[in-house]
Amino acid sequence: MNTSQNSVFPKGEKAPTDYFTGTAWMNVLVPNDATFNCQVANVTFEPCARTTWHTHSGGQILMVTDGVGYYQELGKTIQVLNKGDVLTVAPHIKHWHGASHTSSFTHVAINPQNGSTDWLEAVSDKEYNDTK
Amino acid sequence: MNTSQNSVFPKGEKAPTDYFTGTAWMNVLVPNDATFNCQVANVTFEPCARTTWHTHSGGQILMVTDGVGYYQELGKTIQVLNKGDVLTVAPHIKHWHGASHTSSFTHVAINPQNGSTDWLEAVSDKEYNDTK
Repeated sequence: MNTSQNSVFPKGEKAPTDYFTGTAWMNVLVPNDATFNCQVANVTFEPCARTTWHTHSGGQILMVTDGVGYYQELGKTIQVLNKGDVLTVAPHIKHWHGASHTSSFTHVAINPQNGSTDWLEAVSDKEYNDTK
Repeated sequence: MNTSQNSVFPKGEKAPTDYFTGTAWMNVLVPNDATFNCQVANVTFEPCARTTWHTHSGGQILMVTDGVGYYQELGKTIQVLNKGDVLTVAPHIKHWHGASHTSSFTHVAINPQNGSTDWLEAVSDKEYNDTK
């Protein structure tokens, strides 16, 4: 099992179970404020852990710093993400992200434009396992 | 000499000599656009390399991913930055950043709020060496 031994930023506190399935860790590196209007957080997922479905009003930029993970937008296939991958999530796109089945996964998440997050239903095991 | 063997993102192309002293590399991971209004770039500095003095209209967030570097705001002392450090530069603050004398240095630079950069004069050797 790949574990995030080489993560750049401390993994922080356990992520809220209302918005995450399985064990994940969140470290808010830069809180949203009126000077930058841009939150930056480091998020670490243990294998099989993932966010619930959600949207961001200002969009999101994900930068993978360690491990192997999944990303899916509603109605599309699951994408595999690896260390060094960078992707953008347009405002209001319903999506989820998380670790792969066998590897932990760490990314930096940038929420620009004073964006808020609308947390939705959990990603079911059936949805999560649909990686073929 | 510490070299950035463990950088997360590719170092990209040589940074423009008009805005950098010494050898630096820039990889724009997310260009500024109307959807996110947020540019993200990976910048790698060889030892002694640094930006010129400059300001950002929308401020900047710096996230150190490897090596040891310096950061200075006009009129303040030079700060030493290490892997894992995160700092914010308020809009219109005149500053520079770069590698330390003996280590390379890599950071991710986030420029939110559709910010533009005003590049100013070079950091002199006298200024750069004022690390005591």
